[in-house]
Amino acid sequence: MDLPEHVTIVEVGPRDGLQNEPGVVPTDVKVAFVDRLARTGLSVVEATSFVSPRWVPQLADAAEVLADIERVEHVRYPVLVPNERGLERALEADVAEVAVFGAASEAFSAKNLNRTIDESLEMFRPVVARARDAGLRVRGYVSTVCGCPYQGEVPVADVVRMTVAMLELGCDEISLGDTIGVGAPGQVQDLLAAVTAEAPVQRLAVHMHDTYGQGLANTLAAFEAGVTIADSAAGGLGGCPYAPGAKGNLATEDLVYALHGSGVTTGVDLDALVDATAWMAQQLGRPPVSRVAEAMLAKRER
Amino acid sequence: MDLPEHVTIVEVGPRDGLQNEPGVVPTDVKVAFVDRLARTGLSVVEATSFVSPRWVPQLADAAEVLADIERVEHVRYPVLVPNERGLERALEADVAEVAVFGAASEAFSAKNLNRTIDESLEMFRPVVARARDAGLRVRGYVSTVCGCPYQGEVPVADVVRMTVAMLELGCDEISLGDTIGVGAPGQVQDLLAAVTAEAPVQRLAVHMHDTYGQGLANTLAAFEAGVTIADSAAGGLGGCPYAPGAKGNLATEDLVYALHGSGVTTGVDLDALVDATAWMAQQLGRPPVSRVAEAMLAKRER
Repeated sequence: MDLPEHVTIVEVGPRDGLQNEPGVVPTDVKVAFVDRLARTGLSVVEATSFVSPRWVPQLADAAEVLADIERVEHVRYPVLVPNERGLERALEADVAEVAVFGAASEAFSAKNLNRTIDESLEMFRPVVARARDAGLRVRGYVSTVCGCPYQGEVPVADVVRMTVAMLELGCDEISLGDTIGVGAPGQVQDLLAAVTAEAPVQRLAVHMHDTYGQGLANTLAAFEAGVTIADSAAGGLGGCPYAPGAKGNLATEDLVYALHGSGVTTGVDLDALVDATAWMAQQLGRPPVSRVAEAMLAKRER
Repeated sequence: MDLPEHVTIVEVGPRDGLQNEPGVVPTDVKVAFVDRLARTGLSVVEATSFVSPRWVPQLADAAEVLADIERVEHVRYPVLVPNERGLERALEADVAEVAVFGAASEAFSAKNLNRTIDESLEMFRPVVARARDAGLRVRGYVSTVCGCPYQGEVPVADVVRMTVAMLELGCDEISLGDTIGVGAPGQVQDLLAAVTAEAPVQRLAVHMHDTYGQGLANTLAAFEAGVTIADSAAGGLGGCPYAPGAKGNLATEDLVYALHGSGVTTGVDLDALVDATAWMAQQLGRPPVSRVAEAMLAKRER
């Protein structure tokens, strides 16, 4: 299997996971979750989002979370910033990396950002410029790359265009997201063939959801296409309010298991990761949505 | 992605699934399940097992099931036969294909078959010979190919040896089973590289369980290695009593979704398959363990 030797995992549980929780998780629990994750050997833990508390009350305590986390050496803690106001709050919180969130689908952009794609790019432009001026690293999310809950199919050309546009704005890395988890492995590789014809594969990540059970297979398909960075969430946290029956992000444990079992390094201690997931599941009062966590925890109980 | 153009799915839900149910499913429900599956476009539906009712009371009605199913044209209905007595019962039931069940792990063979691997081969020899004399097609299962619940690691050489031995007995096809679902995609490809050096890939199938969430990725990895036949179970039925926390077989729906979305044909109507799964889940009184079934059923409810 033509997989990279090493893969960088971007743990998105504290942000993409917790923003989709029905209830608000206490700040100290979020902080402890981020700290536990950062001590598993993960090199990137997306800590929170400076989105308006009116829209995402779950993450209203973004500044407090950033003030209280440990900031383990060599671990990056990107935060999502939707606009300039979010960036200002992030800068005040002393972050080193931010992420902006766009979409390849016009219909999703309209519904989610209340803007056309072009308008969203104009919104991101000063955010990315100011972030870079301040010496920050910038991640760009391109969501709905395999399908959209509103318009259905998303033309590959639109994904390519949005990826190139966000790189041109100054993003260091683009995370291609199958937001509603409808893609299949062959589709992902066709998509990446088109995207990598216009954008360097080293600057691409994938972000797969598991609604149709394809998250791991799609992520591995991307690795076979040359991608070396993938987003995932401990315990399979997350979900998409726009896709009924949707499961969350690909579980980090399931990804790590697949990679280590295939001879690919991640730097992650799988046992420590399952510990962090089990702890968080206890806080949330429900079992993790990760087959590996489930199997390893059952084994420990024997 | 280097996938075959067409994949043959061996549906094992009625046998590998139902033999692991805690309760005994009524005969008419089993018959209806097999019939519903056979009408989805699946070309192979493993119908039952002629194992001793003392060991597997769940399938004690094997003869009745075979007498009552519809036998759709062009659909194969293999049945498991553990020994000569099982073969006799299968022949009386007018089957066209049988399967024998061996293991690559000595420890598993000892515990499950009460025999060394060599002794199990001697048990299979007259079964396969008589089956072939009667004009039957014969499948051979080689289980525990990626790991064993008793001895842990299973040397690749042992998998190769058992595969070759079962082909030499006269098996038409060998199904390589990750019985406890511990394999990873790279491991599966390494294993297949070794096996296909000694056995024709056209005569190999894979049979992956989903304990660690690797079932789909492992099956796709096998397809990339040239295999074109895979076992799976509608609704992810099944499980292994020897692996705590174990999930069942790879769900047929999840496999079909991945393949169709990647441009690979299976002949299966996914909607009809989800219907069959939903119906069976209702009979069993619990939801299917298939992300695709879950997502598609949730979508229908909207």
